[in-house]
Amino acid sequence: MRKSNKKPVEIKPGAYEDAILGFRNHWYPALFSADVRETEVKTLKILGEDVLLKRVDGQVYAVRDECLHRGFKFSTKPECFTKNTITCWFHGFTYNIKNGDLVAIPSDPDSKLIGNRKLHSYPIQETKGMLFIFIGDMSPPPPLLDDVQFGFLDEDNHVVPFHSEEVHSNWRIAADSASEFNHTFIHKEDELVKYWKQPLPFAEKPKSDNPYEGFILHEGPGPKGFTDAFSDVIPVFEFKIECDGETNTLRSAFNPQTDPGSMPLQDVEGILTLPCTLRIGPWGAEPESDITGSYMHYEWYVPIDETHHRYIIAWGKKVSSEDEALKAEHDIRTRWSYLEYEGFNKSDILANEGSQAAYDEPGYAYGEKENLSRIDAYVLTWRRMAAKHNRGVQIRYGKKKKSQP
Amino acid sequence: MRKSNKKPVEIKPGAYEDAILGFRNHWYPALFSADVRETEVKTLKILGEDVLLKRVDGQVYAVRDECLHRGFKFSTKPECFTKNTITCWFHGFTYNIKNGDLVAIPSDPDSKLIGNRKLHSYPIQETKGMLFIFIGDMSPPPPLLDDVQFGFLDEDNHVVPFHSEEVHSNWRIAADSASEFNHTFIHKEDELVKYWKQPLPFAEKPKSDNPYEGFILHEGPGPKGFTDAFSDVIPVFEFKIECDGETNTLRSAFNPQTDPGSMPLQDVEGILTLPCTLRIGPWGAEPESDITGSYMHYEWYVPIDETHHRYIIAWGKKVSSEDEALKAEHDIRTRWSYLEYEGFNKSDILANEGSQAAYDEPGYAYGEKENLSRIDAYVLTWRRMAAKHNRGVQIRYGKKKKSQP
Amino acid sequence: MRKSNKKPVEIKPGAYEDAILGFRNHWYPALFSADVRETEVKTLKILGEDVLLKRVDGQVYAVRDECLHRGFKFSTKPECFTKNTITCWFHGFTYNIKNGDLVAIPSDPDSKLIGNRKLHSYPIQETKGMLFIFIGDMSPPPPLLDDVQFGFLDEDNHVVPFHSEEVHSNWRIAADSASEFNHTFIHKEDELVKYWKQPLPFAEKPKSDNPYEGFILHEGPGPKGFTDAFSDVIPVFEFKIECDGETNTLRSAFNPQTDPGSMPLQDVEGILTLPCTLRIGPWGAEPESDITGSYMHYEWYVPIDETHHRYIIAWGKKVSSEDEALKAEHDIRTRWSYLEYEGFNKSDILANEGSQAAYDEPGYAYGEKENLSRIDAYVLTWRRMAAKHNRGVQIRYGKKKKSQP
Repeated sequence: MRKSNKKPVEIKPGAYEDAILGFRNHWYPALFSADVRETEVKTLKILGEDVLLKRVDGQVYAVRDECLHRGFKFSTKPECFTKNTITCWFHGFTYNIKNGDLVAIPSDPDSKLIGNRKLHSYPIQETKGMLFIFIGDMSPPPPLLDDVQFGFLDEDNHVVPFHSEEVHSNWRIAADSASEFNHTFIHKEDELVKYWKQPLPFAEKPKSDNPYEGFILHEGPGPKGFTDAFSDVIPVFEFKIECDGETNTLRSAFNPQTDPGSMPLQDVEGILTLPCTLRIGPWGAEPESDITGSYMHYEWYVPIDETHHRYIIAWGKKVSSEDEALKAEHDIRTRWSYLEYEGFNKSDILANEGSQAAYDEPGYAYGEKENLSRIDAYVLTWRRMAAKHNRGVQIRYGKKKKSQP
Repeated sequence: MRKSNKKPVEIKPGAYEDAILGFRNHWYPALFSADVRETEVKTLKILGEDVLLKRVDGQVYAVRDECLHRGFKFSTKPECFTKNTITCWFHGFTYNIKNGDLVAIPSDPDSKLIGNRKLHSYPIQETKGMLFIFIGDMSPPPPLLDDVQFGFLDEDNHVVPFHSEEVHSNWRIAADSASEFNHTFIHKEDELVKYWKQPLPFAEKPKSDNPYEGFILHEGPGPKGFTDAFSDVIPVFEFKIECDGETNTLRSAFNPQTDPGSMPLQDVEGILTLPCTLRIGPWGAEPESDITGSYMHYEWYVPIDETHHRYIIAWGKKVSSEDEALKAEHDIRTRWSYLEYEGFNKSDILANEGSQAAYDEPGYAYGEKENLSRIDAYVLTWRRMAAKHNRGVQIRYGKKKKSQP
Repeated sequence: MRKSNKKPVEIKPGAYEDAILGFRNHWYPALFSADVRETEVKTLKILGEDVLLKRVDGQVYAVRDECLHRGFKFSTKPECFTKNTITCWFHGFTYNIKNGDLVAIPSDPDSKLIGNRKLHSYPIQETKGMLFIFIGDMSPPPPLLDDVQFGFLDEDNHVVPFHSEEVHSNWRIAADSASEFNHTFIHKEDELVKYWKQPLPFAEKPKSDNPYEGFILHEGPGPKGFTDAFSDVIPVFEFKIECDGETNTLRSAFNPQTDPGSMPLQDVEGILTLPCTLRIGPWGAEPESDITGSYMHYEWYVPIDETHHRYIIAWGKKVSSEDEALKAEHDIRTRWSYLEYEGFNKSDILANEGSQAAYDEPGYAYGEKENLSRIDAYVLTWRRMAAKHNRGVQIRYGKKKKSQP
């Protein structure tokens, strides 16, 4: 099933560099199911758009959070006089929350606007304890299946979403490094690594002269992106620094040669797919065991605005009974959610936030100032896949659109 | 005296849309008289300009708050060595506060600048307990009478100004809705309405097919603007919402048919005039009485900068003796000021602030994104009158001027 | 040695006006020596650039605080695995702190980038308890001697730096007024003046019709700038204000005619030199003594960004023994540092901050709105000298360079 990838993906210039607000016409996780309770109204900024969500008879609907009439933000003081509607507090313009249709105006019950104007209505799919929203214009939208991680929607996959946080960095900084070979350097003192006695390398070298060879591209049906297999690279457990006559050789806290009991990583893969979607796994092995973990780690870098993204984390496990699902849920919520976030992913956040200042400099996001080389095959492959397979570049609401890919 | 208005006012394109900082060459209320005491120096930002005010021998004078020499802001550390002067703390440049003339320089008593340079001096008129300032270049300025509410300056009109607040919205959002038909929707649960048991409609429908017919335009001598008579429209006391099989009919808390004792509104008029000036009245009836109120409500939306305006409220009453004036003052300060502001106008502020985000979007202030219809005849009439009768569009100090209307 | 200066310096138009971030290719004081201790890493924003400093074996080195690879700010989480290196926490790129050379990459020990890429390395000179940094591209940089105050580096000059503060004003506002004749007006009530019973004039008049005559220009070897001798001007101890029939004559708190015991100033000179460097002295006389002070006051207005500068103060004294040096240090730290900063220079800061708002207006920094006259010969001479002798105008990192002088 795997095919070798000898060449870098052909690039569409500019598409990734322009996508400061993310890619349009994709599904994104918005909130967790429990965040929007029956009759409750919530708001969200996503890809620069203000969205209002409401749950009606169990189902969540979403519309743009701005009245068509004169721009009042519904969420300033939301009013709902029937369960299916949202009424603008300012002049009473009332909309069907399910499709955005303008259904009533107090002073003009027969207005021609009624039935002819509608709020933008966002497709919502709720699954696996999460609410996914489609940001774009395609109708019908493409299947959610194409915009989530491989296997995520499988019926026997029990997902536990447990973290959502606003991070002060453009979403691309996070995506560029999702499961990139060399950023493991930041995790070298993390608590999860110690818990596992994990032989986490400082970095990973490509096995071949062609650094792109190790990737499996996903360009067929389903999610678009690529797999990097941790076993296809040479882990670097030592890092020798020589400078001005001084030498220091760093050694990873745990090393498979010297610590034979440490956790195996050879079967772990990272899969990064559009729009901003990572899967790592298998994951969550028991410490001091040589049995591969039975969990999948999922994460997303959802654009909020030009300088912030929402970092969302979930874990999943294949289960065959409710009892197994409950046990997994308990295990994730009482153990892994802490170790994974506090003990590992917090370092990723610091890495991303520490790179934002450079991104704010003129020209930086266009790569003019970076110094990428063969070790950055991961970053370059992601950028090329993203440039090739995205369904459009998001632009600021109200700005004139450039031509879309 | 009233004439019918069959056509919308012809529009000057852009003048209202460009007036993000307000209209130049008009009088605006600055502060209340009691805010500037003898010898006291105060500052104010208005239409983007920084102004310094000082009271000398009872009279208030105003100059630009920026030294001509090298730009020091007098108000950083105001120094007054004679009662008629303001001295720049930095280099001692001293100006006549009454006309802005440069009168002394410590190191160069015979400088040619003295007598040949002057600070911009703002005409000030103090009346009715308020300080009005003229922002513009016309000399002499047009009469104050043309820029305040009809009847405001009448000798027997006892005015009590009681509220001034910085609001986070462009001034036009407030002016557009000043006494507009449909925004009463926001007041439906307000304390003042309950106090009066007021049959406040949700909205008002034009009586005629021509929604402009109900307005009386004021284009002759005196203030420029228009009157909307609350009795010329059909009040809407019920609002029926039907959506997806569910129906709800809202009914106003008080209805003249079912609550015959509720306060009559038939004689109340709203008059919106340039530059940003509203009069509502007669107002302030006694609850459970059928006698028309004897007060006038006045308000202003004075531009501060692009995203803020100062909301100023006063009430007035025709009186024939000092005793009557004192009673009115006591009544306004101990009753109406609370009911009017806390119990009514606070909702207007929320409506205006909740619309600012849309105004900040590119193009919004140019009406490209609004959906106006016949029910917005009020808004459109105001914009057209403002575009037609303003005396100039204010631009940022220091920016090159575009051609002025 | 002095030559008379009859003409204003010929001006290079724009160079000073464009230098919102300061002049490039000059030495600036960065930090005091004690601020960077052995092995310690510090950061600094200067002329818009982010700099990281580290002390190794007693010597301080500085590099740009941004990894070449993908822009991570080293200072987010600095790591040093050998004493001569700084390692990027994100991907382990390791640099020689002494010259910026990239020396190691964990995953690619043989990368061609190693030895071929380097961080910008800033020349540092440490002297007189201060760290001087060279911001620019000239290699080798010109001598420090040319960018500090005359005599500052003399071997027998014992310098005590005692104040460093971020001021909210563009650096040029401070430089324009450094020891300018007329700004003494701000010091009229300062504690240092009272301590000295100093006959501080309100302002100073040029003796000659040619106000440029009193300046001695320094255009030969060494620092470039000019001297104004306090004795070459006519001090103004009275300031008469007449306005609208009222008159007030201000008199300085101390006057050499009426207070014969007051401190003499006749030998005091101010020397303002590039890049932003002032010397005042002799200074620090004993109160109620007619002996000239034996100190020199030094200060700098180091650009941070477009709207802030760092105000640095030091005093110096010629000494012939360690004991004398220690006594001077004690005297400065326990007496003069308080009187000079709290009792004098704080007024300068207020003057500069109170002028920033005008500078933020469009066009202001280009002098379009100022009203300069013969009393501003000081300001004009400084601007012309700065425009003529600077080594380049600093531009924002990442912006395309304009042609440099």
